[in-house]
Amino acid sequence: MVFAIQPFCKRETILPKTLLRVLSGETVSPPPVWLMRQAGRYLPEYRAIRAKTKNFLEMVYTPDIAVEVTLQPLRRYGMDAAILFSDILVIPDALGQSVAFMQGEGPVLEPLRTATDIGRLTSAGLHEHLAPVYETVRRLAKELDSNTALIGFAGAPWTVAVYMVEGRGGTDHATIRRWAYSDPVGFGRLIELLVEATVAYLSYQIEAGAEAVQLFDTWAGVLSEQQFQQWCIAPTKAIVERLREKHPGVPVIGFPRGAGALYVDYISNTGVNGIGLDTGVPLSWAAQVLQPQGAIQGNLDNQLLATGGNALDAAVDRLLAIFGHGPFIFNLGHGIVPDTPPEHVARLVERVRAWNG
Amino acid sequence: MVFAIQPFCKRETILPKTLLRVLSGETVSPPPVWLMRQAGRYLPEYRAIRAKTKNFLEMVYTPDIAVEVTLQPLRRYGMDAAILFSDILVIPDALGQSVAFMQGEGPVLEPLRTATDIGRLTSAGLHEHLAPVYETVRRLAKELDSNTALIGFAGAPWTVAVYMVEGRGGTDHATIRRWAYSDPVGFGRLIELLVEATVAYLSYQIEAGAEAVQLFDTWAGVLSEQQFQQWCIAPTKAIVERLREKHPGVPVIGFPRGAGALYVDYISNTGVNGIGLDTGVPLSWAAQVLQPQGAIQGNLDNQLLATGGNALDAAVDRLLAIFGHGPFIFNLGHGIVPDTPPEHVARLVERVRAWNG
Repeated sequence: MVFAIQPFCKRETILPKTLLRVLSGETVSPPPVWLMRQAGRYLPEYRAIRAKTKNFLEMVYTPDIAVEVTLQPLRRYGMDAAILFSDILVIPDALGQSVAFMQGEGPVLEPLRTATDIGRLTSAGLHEHLAPVYETVRRLAKELDSNTALIGFAGAPWTVAVYMVEGRGGTDHATIRRWAYSDPVGFGRLIELLVEATVAYLSYQIEAGAEAVQLFDTWAGVLSEQQFQQWCIAPTKAIVERLREKHPGVPVIGFPRGAGALYVDYISNTGVNGIGLDTGVPLSWAAQVLQPQGAIQGNLDNQLLATGGNALDAAVDRLLAIFGHGPFIFNLGHGIVPDTPPEHVARLVERVRAWNG
Repeated sequence: MVFAIQPFCKRETILPKTLLRVLSGETVSPPPVWLMRQAGRYLPEYRAIRAKTKNFLEMVYTPDIAVEVTLQPLRRYGMDAAILFSDILVIPDALGQSVAFMQGEGPVLEPLRTATDIGRLTSAGLHEHLAPVYETVRRLAKELDSNTALIGFAGAPWTVAVYMVEGRGGTDHATIRRWAYSDPVGFGRLIELLVEATVAYLSYQIEAGAEAVQLFDTWAGVLSEQQFQQWCIAPTKAIVERLREKHPGVPVIGFPRGAGALYVDYISNTGVNGIGLDTGVPLSWAAQVLQPQGAIQGNLDNQLLATGGNALDAAVDRLLAIFGHGPFIFNLGHGIVPDTPPEHVARLVERVRAWNG
């Protein structure tokens, strides 16, 4: 009798985690929810640990701390996914271009500008340098319950290269964009080095227990169409292909922030399973054009989460109404900002969970 | 005989200027060309004048200087349009919120944050304060030859409000975005004040001789879809409608930088005659989706213009090939950067002029 096995099939514990179901193309209602920078300065328990550490990278490279900080938002809100506590700049750091996090200034690097500078980088010590990160992933994989997915991540090559060449993030990117225009072969070597390091890094994260990985391309939005094809889509596609060979079942989420209409090319041509939408992406357009091609993740305004109130509720409802009937992961369009009241996050998660659209 | 009048009809001087023909929906080959910040620091003759003035606003408010600086790039390159030399922040300045231009820092304003702060602004002295700008427009209108169009401009309300509320431009816009979410009525009063001032300001520019006007919405890209509708599209639509009542024949170009997929909503709903595309907008998409609805202006990468070489030539050719068969104004995706070699601009203009696609 067919019906006899139904209760067995429905058992929550043997179904894959909701985040992974969505990334395989399934619609889950209510959708899974996690938030970029859910482990971060808006939480008093995070600030307490941060105050006791020398610098940001010490937190990243100390598994006891990184595990604890990763788990903090899960204890409060029971998110559907944990994201490894780390930073996209561990890659240049591991390649020999050391990174400093300045108070109030963000990361600073000694800029790299020529083929000779690239020659000084080496991936020989990559995994040794990143061993504490893998250890954090291993411990997290054991800690998480059977409903919570573990997301590993890396910066996409273009965005990591921005920090490596400009020395920091929020510039006009003049140096790197001109280098890429005037010497695509030389600059391409840096990107290829980053593709290889990223594949190696994410493979180790997956082997340590990461069930999905996200590529953060924070500065994708500054590229012209042609540079976007060359320095965002092509390297992302290469990473996805090489990862898929090694780990065929592990989904990749891409986040080309600011890609605008180029989100279409990105999702069509990179092979990612899901895409993170930044705050500016219009919902109905994305539901119509992007969601048929992959899972949507996003895109509540982080400043609206910080503001709270009825406008927040209305925006949450709108996201659920427009994206909730297809593969959708509820998230922000950019990371949680430090002065966000933690109770706004609770309110958001509760509202998503209560949805029965 | 019909043929007898043909030579008369073809006389260059009685045809409207190419820029205006394109903004009325006509395809002109080769297309007209002008460049954002064509009057600026990349020109030695500009720097010579700047060195002799106290500050940036003195240049803007002194017709002798503003006229001279506006004309400098025309003498070198014979662009198809002159754009009034001014700044979007003359509006807050004229409303009583004084603006200072700090060396290397850009404009700085004492931030305005509450309904009371808005109450202190007054448009009573608007036209008196801006009289030198109108005088500049009047003189330019007399100076320009019959092929060169005169473009007036203003900042769009959202972007001007960013400077008024944040005190400067390149922030995360947290304060203004939260204000707009938490108190849309109060914030709406500031936007409405700016709509009225902008209509008055542009009307006077038109009466002084501006033949087209451009609205710069430099910070449109930070808005979520709903805020974009409310604070970019709605005020722009209001300005276009009120201007059109007063000056039905004068075209409006909108430049909602970073609007991404929302460029579609912008061109469909604001009533502008043409849109400026930022560097990130993909060409074929824009040609297919946007150009049937209005003239396209843009969008060569300003960093590629600074870089020069074959990559520049190829990008110029690609723009012409994709947009040149419809209403198109050749321009950059963002203003010329100060260290651009002037000979790259000459090379670009020459290449556009030689096109016979």
